[in-house]
Amino acid sequence: MKIGIINGPNLNLLGVREPEVYGRDTLADIEANIRSAISDPDVELQFHQSNSEAEIIDLLHSLAYNWKVDGIVMNPGSYSHYSYAIRDAISAIDVPVIEVHISNTQAREGFRHRSVTAGACKGKIEGLGWVGYVLAVVYLSS
Amino acid sequence: MKIGIINGPNLNLLGVREPEVYGRDTLADIEANIRSAISDPDVELQFHQSNSEAEIIDLLHSLAYNWKVDGIVMNPGSYSHYSYAIRDAISAIDVPVIEVHISNTQAREGFRHRSVTAGACKGKIEGLGWVGYVLAVVYLSS
Amino acid sequence: MKIGIINGPNLNLLGVREPEVYGRDTLADIEANIRSAISDPDVELQFHQSNSEAEIIDLLHSLAYNWKVDGIVMNPGSYSHYSYAIRDAISAIDVPVIEVHISNTQAREGFRHRSVTAGACKGKIEGLGWVGYVLAVVYLSS
Amino acid sequence: MKIGIINGPNLNLLGVREPEVYGRDTLADIEANIRSAISDPDVELQFHQSNSEAEIIDLLHSLAYNWKVDGIVMNPGSYSHYSYAIRDAISAIDVPVIEVHISNTQAREGFRHRSVTAGACKGKIEGLGWVGYVLAVVYLSS
Amino acid sequence: MKIGIINGPNLNLLGVREPEVYGRDTLADIEANIRSAISDPDVELQFHQSNSEAEIIDLLHSLAYNWKVDGIVMNPGSYSHYSYAIRDAISAIDVPVIEVHISNTQAREGFRHRSVTAGACKGKIEGLGWVGYVLAVVYLSS
Amino acid sequence: MKIGIINGPNLNLLGVREPEVYGRDTLADIEANIRSAISDPDVELQFHQSNSEAEIIDLLHSLAYNWKVDGIVMNPGSYSHYSYAIRDAISAIDVPVIEVHISNTQAREGFRHRSVTAGACKGKIEGLGWVGYVLAVVYLSS
Amino acid sequence: MKIGIINGPNLNLLGVREPEVYGRDTLADIEANIRSAISDPDVELQFHQSNSEAEIIDLLHSLAYNWKVDGIVMNPGSYSHYSYAIRDAISAIDVPVIEVHISNTQAREGFRHRSVTAGACKGKIEGLGWVGYVLAVVYLSS
Amino acid sequence: MKIGIINGPNLNLLGVREPEVYGRDTLADIEANIRSAISDPDVELQFHQSNSEAEIIDLLHSLAYNWKVDGIVMNPGSYSHYSYAIRDAISAIDVPVIEVHISNTQAREGFRHRSVTAGACKGKIEGLGWVGYVLAVVYLSS
Amino acid sequence: MKIGIINGPNLNLLGVREPEVYGRDTLADIEANIRSAISDPDVELQFHQSNSEAEIIDLLHSLAYNWKVDGIVMNPGSYSHYSYAIRDAISAIDVPVIEVHISNTQAREGFRHRSVTAGACKGKIEGLGWVGYVLAVVYLSS
Amino acid sequence: MKIGIINGPNLNLLGVREPEVYGRDTLADIEANIRSAISDPDVELQFHQSNSEAEIIDLLHSLAYNWKVDGIVMNPGSYSHYSYAIRDAISAIDVPVIEVHISNTQAREGFRHRSVTAGACKGKIEGLGWVGYVLAVVYLSS
Amino acid sequence: MKIGIINGPNLNLLGVREPEVYGRDTLADIEANIRSAISDPDVELQFHQSNSEAEIIDLLHSLAYNWKVDGIVMNPGSYSHYSYAIRDAISAIDVPVIEVHISNTQAREGFRHRSVTAGACKGKIEGLGWVGYVLAVVYLSS
Amino acid sequence: MKIGIINGPNLNLLGVREPEVYGRDTLADIEANIRSAISDPDVELQFHQSNSEAEIIDLLHSLAYNWKVDGIVMNPGSYSHYSYAIRDAISAIDVPVIEVHISNTQAREGFRHRSVTAGACKGKIEGLGWVGYVLAVVYLSS
Repeated sequence: MKIGIINGPNLNLLGVREPEVYGRDTLADIEANIRSAISDPDVELQFHQSNSEAEIIDLLHSLAYNWKVDGIVMNPGSYSHYSYAIRDAISAIDVPVIEVHISNTQAREGFRHRSVTAGACKGKIEGLGWVGYVLAVVYLSS
Repeated sequence: MKIGIINGPNLNLLGVREPEVYGRDTLADIEANIRSAISDPDVELQFHQSNSEAEIIDLLHSLAYNWKVDGIVMNPGSYSHYSYAIRDAISAIDVPVIEVHISNTQAREGFRHRSVTAGACKGKIEGLGWVGYVLAVVYLSS
Repeated sequence: MKIGIINGPNLNLLGVREPEVYGRDTLADIEANIRSAISDPDVELQFHQSNSEAEIIDLLHSLAYNWKVDGIVMNPGSYSHYSYAIRDAISAIDVPVIEVHISNTQAREGFRHRSVTAGACKGKIEGLGWVGYVLAVVYLSS
Repeated sequence: MKIGIINGPNLNLLGVREPEVYGRDTLADIEANIRSAISDPDVELQFHQSNSEAEIIDLLHSLAYNWKVDGIVMNPGSYSHYSYAIRDAISAIDVPVIEVHISNTQAREGFRHRSVTAGACKGKIEGLGWVGYVLAVVYLSS
Repeated sequence: MKIGIINGPNLNLLGVREPEVYGRDTLADIEANIRSAISDPDVELQFHQSNSEAEIIDLLHSLAYNWKVDGIVMNPGSYSHYSYAIRDAISAIDVPVIEVHISNTQAREGFRHRSVTAGACKGKIEGLGWVGYVLAVVYLSS
Repeated sequence: MKIGIINGPNLNLLGVREPEVYGRDTLADIEANIRSAISDPDVELQFHQSNSEAEIIDLLHSLAYNWKVDGIVMNPGSYSHYSYAIRDAISAIDVPVIEVHISNTQAREGFRHRSVTAGACKGKIEGLGWVGYVLAVVYLSS
Repeated sequence: MKIGIINGPNLNLLGVREPEVYGRDTLADIEANIRSAISDPDVELQFHQSNSEAEIIDLLHSLAYNWKVDGIVMNPGSYSHYSYAIRDAISAIDVPVIEVHISNTQAREGFRHRSVTAGACKGKIEGLGWVGYVLAVVYLSS
Repeated sequence: MKIGIINGPNLNLLGVREPEVYGRDTLADIEANIRSAISDPDVELQFHQSNSEAEIIDLLHSLAYNWKVDGIVMNPGSYSHYSYAIRDAISAIDVPVIEVHISNTQAREGFRHRSVTAGACKGKIEGLGWVGYVLAVVYLSS
Repeated sequence: MKIGIINGPNLNLLGVREPEVYGRDTLADIEANIRSAISDPDVELQFHQSNSEAEIIDLLHSLAYNWKVDGIVMNPGSYSHYSYAIRDAISAIDVPVIEVHISNTQAREGFRHRSVTAGACKGKIEGLGWVGYVLAVVYLSS
Repeated sequence: MKIGIINGPNLNLLGVREPEVYGRDTLADIEANIRSAISDPDVELQFHQSNSEAEIIDLLHSLAYNWKVDGIVMNPGSYSHYSYAIRDAISAIDVPVIEVHISNTQAREGFRHRSVTAGACKGKIEGLGWVGYVLAVVYLSS
Repeated sequence: MKIGIINGPNLNLLGVREPEVYGRDTLADIEANIRSAISDPDVELQFHQSNSEAEIIDLLHSLAYNWKVDGIVMNPGSYSHYSYAIRDAISAIDVPVIEVHISNTQAREGFRHRSVTAGACKGKIEGLGWVGYVLAVVYLSS
Repeated sequence: MKIGIINGPNLNLLGVREPEVYGRDTLADIEANIRSAISDPDVELQFHQSNSEAEIIDLLHSLAYNWKVDGIVMNPGSYSHYSYAIRDAISAIDVPVIEVHISNTQAREGFRHRSVTAGACKGKIEGLGWVGYVLAVVYLSS
């Protein structure tokens, strides 16, 4: 069972950027946490991070058609606000995608997050920190 | 460790109502599924369903202040569209609440779901069927 | 042939409240008028009034699944503005529901009535006073 | 007792156009159905159909001031979306007008029908097929 | 000097329709008033009334290109709300057009009149009753 | 002279919930404060609290028609955002109602409170803490 | 017969400011034109210009209550966009006010002028240059 | 193979009206250009122009059901802004319709053209002058 | 204890302007009523009225920094619709300000009052006539 | 004569992605179809596809300034929803660009496509499948 | 070389009002800072502050036409939200005006500053404290 | 002292693209102008231009964390309309960023520029041509 995990723009700065909002774990820490939380030896995880909308589209295509993953966990970061191109890429593949956000995007008053990508996904998990990735992998691999 | 699970309006008809959208499991089936998926004997689950906004508010109050749960999983159903009263009830308690929706509320074109309750919650899980409840319990009890 | 008739919030004050808008007939008068206008002995009418959104939801469920009515005539009163929960209850049953309003909800300038419940109904009759209920019953029983 | 019945644009294609939405009865079938459903010999019906906004305005004027009908049943078709000129024609006559739509205009998601003409009418009946015309005639002639 | 005067939909009912808003003068009375108020023998007036958007467009074309008027006074009635076709007809001719409304279209609260035709005109006069026509003719003929 | 005082949803948690916004006084403390601030022995106060929209509607009806109060002070809590049913209940009685909010509902940026109930009331007092109730009682009893 | 004429902000620069839009006549030229166009010796004209919203309000008050004019012609300039205070001042006096604009405020695409003051006036004349003032005086004095 | 070509309001003035926007070719010139550009002898063209919404609806009906064309090319002119009646007429026939505009309707800033008719068409061609008609005919006849 | 009372534009016409809305008391009457209602000899009242936005800003500054009042009661009149400058002046001083409106600003349908100034105030009282000023003074001086 | 053809994001999946909407032809098939449909030996076609907004901008620059094409046919895919950067790139070159969409972007209810790029183009062709590209090339090369 | 510097409403309270937002420098301090930062002896600075919209309009007129400055630096304060009258005054003079704001008006979430005055200016500088004034003077005098 | 200067999409065409709006200086000219205007030998400037959103994000990261600049001057071009990803990148670094636009983005009527990136910056300078860059560097290096 193969699961791809894509982290979008600025998530390479996790642990460095605004730690009071996003926590002090780096992306490497979180990837390690996820790996150790998934004990099932049949689940193969592939981690990707990119600041590029086009690379994320290419990743979605190649994870689905070349590497033939069983599911994708994606944190599109702020591309979820406006990237209809990523939304179309999700619609264009047959693999279930779960959108994950580390913080609760509805909790900031006056700046209500609207995800244009979530509508093309299987589901969404938000506000549960890095555990959200684990739960998404558990769902896809169960 | 005590977790309360609240299902809102019309969810008593699960398995009967629009099964092509919500599946054929009844609420009792789903509650049984959740119980069997949570193997940890220290996690005590309390299930509630109500069609009444006021009863849901009362439940949130009493789960928090009388029964002193460690967390609440709530599917507010269509009250999530407009119930600022439930939103305020969530803000008024110190217990983490996770909002769960069985289907992906963003996937229906032209009828974009806006959850006014989610902003007061710890996080949200949607689109993952009854497994969403399990994942929420796992999060709250870990 | 069984028809349920549900009147929503504040309609218990008919004849008392703003008679220049809603007329001087009480709800009892109107129910009597409806009964006498429906001469068909095979049509059994059940009248309900409630100020409670939850009770209206419960009524819709039980009229459909317990009492097995052939149709429902409902005046949701001002819940038609915002009760997605009642809308979902209508969608969740297989019985045709006709929404009735005593006055013409489009005639008040600057306060345009938007019915969120009507979209889940079979149809709507408005502006024809208590005769609207009779016409709805005639339709459902014909 | 004289009742005028006006059908607006494209209703001449009833039975031909999108029968899964509007049914297979032609306008002539429906007119025949209405005539046979109204058994009261004192009710004189006059049927009109026009694709022209101006002709509908002229009809409203002449039905009211020349033929002196007691009431008008009108299906304005899609002119109900924008014809303030027809709205004004309804306001300009003293005859009660009931707006009828064959299908439920609120049921199509993402394309919510707003009737600018209904506010000037006595009332509205929608979603009840050709029976809606009969009910409107019954109301006006009772 | 030739001036065309076009009155739009429902203005044939002036004096009959809602006299508390539009006064008791008929369109013939008003035309007579205008003729007697314009004493200049060199000003030739041509009066037209139509309920038809297409006829008004044709009138604008023919007044400009066939009859070669020096100016047009037009009360578009409720077509001013939405008739981009009339707006384009005004733009398509080189003759100055003045839009006239008998009542003050800004004074009705909650139903703010937006004239899409006025932007293509030379100017607008409103709220001054039938005198508005006279003032417009005075302007165009001076 | 009889005055009814209704407190809406979540106000039973006053003193417990977000004390930095709503203060540390419990509802009982506030009721005691109000009683002691109103020294006039002819003023009879009746306190009610409910989390239920339907109960608040019933209370408005019965305070007006059964107990025949001279005025009502109501803090509708978050029902003021959307409860057209409570608004209609206020319109349906002849008793003056004054809406009170403990905090200034306009002061939170990005989350501008719109009260749909206030338009049916005699007036509104907000931002003055529990003293707002006292001032409202003073007004109604003077 | 006394008529007050008020010109609002920046109109003191007429003839200087953007002459391609507003023409080359100064305000003094226009006032002279108006005086000579009004031949009736019984019509007494009073001209005022102010850049101050408060002075315009004071002028409306004093023209009505002290000088007891029979009518007011006012070009509110850009205060017509937002000055509810001037609107209220117009409503607060019994004198008919006619709003005049030199250019056609509807003709500028993408910057649609909304006059909040016009709704409180008797009527409006726009787009006819300084002749608009003359026509307004003619109306008020006839 | 039969193709109908409908030109809507004001297009009879092509070559006369605003030639800097629409060019100097008259409608007759354009029709001649189209005929000579379509060399295929099997393609029969029928040209219509009307300023009337109702005539355009009638034309769509009769081209489809009487003359049994294989396709229709329509320039709805400014009716594309608001004519839901024409939109419905397009939906009511089974013939493919291609909407053509001579100029690019998206290029005018601040006045963004929204075509309500295009959604019911097979496709749209705009901004390519009279060649747009030719390309549409080529498409329909290939 | 010093309290400043500021009345904004057009309130100098109280008793004269639209008495059916604002009552027949003049501003002087109201000031006398307020003085006599405040029996506490330690409360010193200063009354101001101005039609000028700038003067109201200056008054807020000088009442706070020169006269060192303990509180301000302000009826901003229609400046409450749009005067961000007055809003900033309230924010710029440390003195509690209570906004008062004589009528209920929420009760007029179709013209919903939005106060931009209220958000910067301590609280708001509206709909209670001149008694509103008294209650505000009572609050500030207690 | 040189024509560049740019296909944007996800169009590399044509024939694979949602074939019921976009058809079963791959991008290579379509390019072959276009080549064979353009028989004129003087027309040189250059095909490009990219998922990257920046590459599309670079392509527009280099096609215009380096390769000096006579025209560009571009299907911007979902970048047409929001890419003001591509819009600016079109404006920044002197080459005519025609926007092509394979499906009719106006036909999906509730998700109305707004093209921000089309306004900077010469024209637009949509809904005509791969033939749209051919027609655009014909236009540019004629 | 003469430069006028205008500070708008409430800026007389700089250093006193909300120093955590606007700093502790008084307006006099800032004026001194600006003078000492501009070492060029040929640059003559004139400082003005006013809380009055009308005075600011008069200042713009007189700086341009009487004192004949070479440029103006203006901080319109909160008048930038709504003063179309000041916007028109800027358009009415030929002198370049640079709008300056001390803080970043875009940084406050949920209260997005829209400057109606900036569109009539040469440019805008914001968020750079009092140095913004210096940079604007440097620009205008270079 | 190190300052990074980033120019976004299409700015590589400066001097070529629409010179009547953006001037005839190439980007190289402007960079030379900036270098020569900054005479301070301690200020080290690094120039970057990219059409790629992802490269701009990477540049912001690396300028801040690798090259450790003291400030960044960025002209985001049209990415300022919608790039929440760049906005987040600015928030994710501790370096002050000043947004610069060559033209006044507020001056184009009907196409009001909304910068989503400016809110995360220290400040903004616009409308002052290439001098805007110099002023930004002066600010950051002083």
